[in-house]
Amino acid sequence: MVSLRQGFSTSPTPASSFYENFEPPGPTVKTEIPGPRSRRLIKDLDKVFDTRSLSILTDYQKSTGNYIADADGNMLLDVYAQIASIPLGYNNPVLRQAAKSEAMIDGIINRPALGTFPPHDWAEVLRSGLLKVAPKGLNQVFTAMAGSDANETAYKAAFMWRRQQERGGPDVDFTDEEAASAMDNQSPGAPQLSILSFKTAFHGRLFGTLSTTRSKPIHKLDIPAFDWPQATFPQLRYPLKEHAAANAAAEKASLDEVEHLLTTYRVPPCAVVVEPIQAEGGDNHASPAFFRGLRDVTRKHGVLLIVDEVQTGVGATGRFWAHEHWNLATPPDMVTFSKKAQAAGFYYGDPALRPNKPYRQFNTWMGDPVRALLFRAIADEMKRLDLVRHTARVGEYLYAGLEDLDRRYPGEFANLRGKGMGTFIAFDNPRRDDFLARVKKQGVNIGGSGESAP
Amino acid sequence: MVSLRQGFSTSPTPASSFYENFEPPGPTVKTEIPGPRSRRLIKDLDKVFDTRSLSILTDYQKSTGNYIADADGNMLLDVYAQIASIPLGYNNPVLRQAAKSEAMIDGIINRPALGTFPPHDWAEVLRSGLLKVAPKGLNQVFTAMAGSDANETAYKAAFMWRRQQERGGPDVDFTDEEAASAMDNQSPGAPQLSILSFKTAFHGRLFGTLSTTRSKPIHKLDIPAFDWPQATFPQLRYPLKEHAAANAAAEKASLDEVEHLLTTYRVPPCAVVVEPIQAEGGDNHASPAFFRGLRDVTRKHGVLLIVDEVQTGVGATGRFWAHEHWNLATPPDMVTFSKKAQAAGFYYGDPALRPNKPYRQFNTWMGDPVRALLFRAIADEMKRLDLVRHTARVGEYLYAGLEDLDRRYPGEFANLRGKGMGTFIAFDNPRRDDFLARVKKQGVNIGGSGESAP
Repeated sequence: MVSLRQGFSTSPTPASSFYENFEPPGPTVKTEIPGPRSRRLIKDLDKVFDTRSLSILTDYQKSTGNYIADADGNMLLDVYAQIASIPLGYNNPVLRQAAKSEAMIDGIINRPALGTFPPHDWAEVLRSGLLKVAPKGLNQVFTAMAGSDANETAYKAAFMWRRQQERGGPDVDFTDEEAASAMDNQSPGAPQLSILSFKTAFHGRLFGTLSTTRSKPIHKLDIPAFDWPQATFPQLRYPLKEHAAANAAAEKASLDEVEHLLTTYRVPPCAVVVEPIQAEGGDNHASPAFFRGLRDVTRKHGVLLIVDEVQTGVGATGRFWAHEHWNLATPPDMVTFSKKAQAAGFYYGDPALRPNKPYRQFNTWMGDPVRALLFRAIADEMKRLDLVRHTARVGEYLYAGLEDLDRRYPGEFANLRGKGMGTFIAFDNPRRDDFLARVKKQGVNIGGSGESAP
Repeated sequence: MVSLRQGFSTSPTPASSFYENFEPPGPTVKTEIPGPRSRRLIKDLDKVFDTRSLSILTDYQKSTGNYIADADGNMLLDVYAQIASIPLGYNNPVLRQAAKSEAMIDGIINRPALGTFPPHDWAEVLRSGLLKVAPKGLNQVFTAMAGSDANETAYKAAFMWRRQQERGGPDVDFTDEEAASAMDNQSPGAPQLSILSFKTAFHGRLFGTLSTTRSKPIHKLDIPAFDWPQATFPQLRYPLKEHAAANAAAEKASLDEVEHLLTTYRVPPCAVVVEPIQAEGGDNHASPAFFRGLRDVTRKHGVLLIVDEVQTGVGATGRFWAHEHWNLATPPDMVTFSKKAQAAGFYYGDPALRPNKPYRQFNTWMGDPVRALLFRAIADEMKRLDLVRHTARVGEYLYAGLEDLDRRYPGEFANLRGKGMGTFIAFDNPRRDDFLARVKKQGVNIGGSGESAP
């Protein structure tokens, strides 16, 4: 698939005086990419740092707004945006101001161990930033470093919550057998419990998250994994209105499979983790009704619902959090975030998701205040310029344009999807990788997702 | 145990004009800790962020050098240093200059996906910083976010290396069975292989690293773990010269156990991970001969040796890397770092530790250039002021003082250890937690390690 999810979304409106001359009138492609200077530098870099996944050797000083510059003077419109993690364009002048602040310098040179020695104004930093944009119903946060450990600490919270329930509540202490067996990596101390994820999901690449990632073999090969279950993610057919009955049946079958696995899998799941839109796995969408059903089935069986908003969060879908599209009756138990937030972690609401003793959910740094401060500046600027709504509008415009192209070039823009989901738009092209390469030559940096991605 | 490993080590010499008036003449304790203002703020913070492991609500603006300030105006000599991760004292003026640089601001607001879009000068940033201080024999680096993912990506490299060997080299492709079984979290694609670690070791708290961490039940309880083996770490007796024969026997027994596990454990190990000094697990030391033996036994059985220098690295032991004390004939296969480096990742030398295809050892950010730039500034300043040698001298002074106290107060400073290891010094006190609390009242922030740590 060709994914358009990453650019545009938060491109600042030209109306703001901050952003005058922020972007060039269009792309400039002077050389092949990589050009001669890039090739020389890449060859040198490769001696000390693996460059085989390198796409553009970037000149960040010259990159601006939605335009990425390379080491040969090329300037591309960037709808890939550092794998969906640049929220307000390159060299954003408002973020530049924030980066020069005393608070930011302080965070760089005096990095705290946040669990043990938090800054005296940490509550205020959280409330005016991370928590100000927290999903509805979730008023607490555990801060982390990136998407993988955001998800893994959420999984840990789920395991501790479940075992605490089984034990009879937070006041019941561990048995000696539990303590001893945990030290030997054996049950009951290290329990036989699992996290249920979906086929074609992507949740990260460390050992716990990789056990829930089901995107591509290249991500998983040769790495030991936990025996955790996977359910089929609904495979919707497009255009949606022509396949309403088949799609509803696919979603029902998926929910039935989830329920079956929750009740019968040999390693019982204590949580289900799901992306609102499977991104890395191929831009796979499901209906709000499907996610409401997932909330229902998890509640029915006393299992937590973790919504992984690492890629969908922070405005890209035309809502600040993608799961706002679902109108859930009760919020997810945990929502994880990273990427465009620049900061990372998970939100939660239920006090029982704090383990019953200190030092259980803990590590040295527990996040990075520099990134928490940056997220505050990002969220403020998004609000000031109403960028979430702007993204919804840009998405409508873009989607209509792609619909038009689909009519004019049948088959080249197949399974166009993401209507009403901001700029989180994708389509299938029969010669995808060739298409991406040709678009790049035209000056647009764009990414693929799913099975045959490069 | 009472651990003194974290302060002093890099306290800048007063000779440098940069550091005039850098530190107060001594601690100031005005209130109980936490005092009334801290208690009020902690109560408020706890509504949104777990504060049960909180020690000092810190005023970083007022902290300076080796002195940490709290929200009530207390100022403590800090030999705990953010769990051993502040390398050059608080509000270091040289680091402040670095934090204001254009390169740093650029790294904050234009965070790259380093694997795909590295900055054009990334090779130069690495060579002038991270790689300039690389352990001897290791000339390549994989950058990460913190100690846990530094270790986990090293483990991943080890698993891929081993399966590549078994498969017949980098040019032999995966079978269809491997690709399919990996997607189901089953072998052979997700192999039954392990990492061997030591009892009382600490390597991190994500799912893979936690399976190698054997410090305390509270770290591991309720979290699923891999069935990986653990060997006994030598338990040396002090003073060393009075117990030379027993200690040599303990080290030999440990190496024999390692060899036994490498050759017989039901889930075969492909690597051994070890800390030069077990820190969190109780400040447990072993001799250089033990580590040379460990290098020999791993080489003999074709198993990798990963040295976890997350806590020992960057000067604390009177060498830049603690394993320099060992005089190994061949370097470790990988050395991981974080904490005082501020940046994180692992060093390696053998090109075979780069997996045979791109995107196998990969994630979105792959580290943070802000922290790589900071580490460069830290390493430069350590060199300029010869701080590693200074730490060795301070360690000698400190150790001699503690020996004197041990003579004057028998039993209060038992098993004093860390001679010749810079400021990485610890001792046992029969009323450890009470001792720590009393020392804190005297204006010294100090940490414990090992079984009964708070």
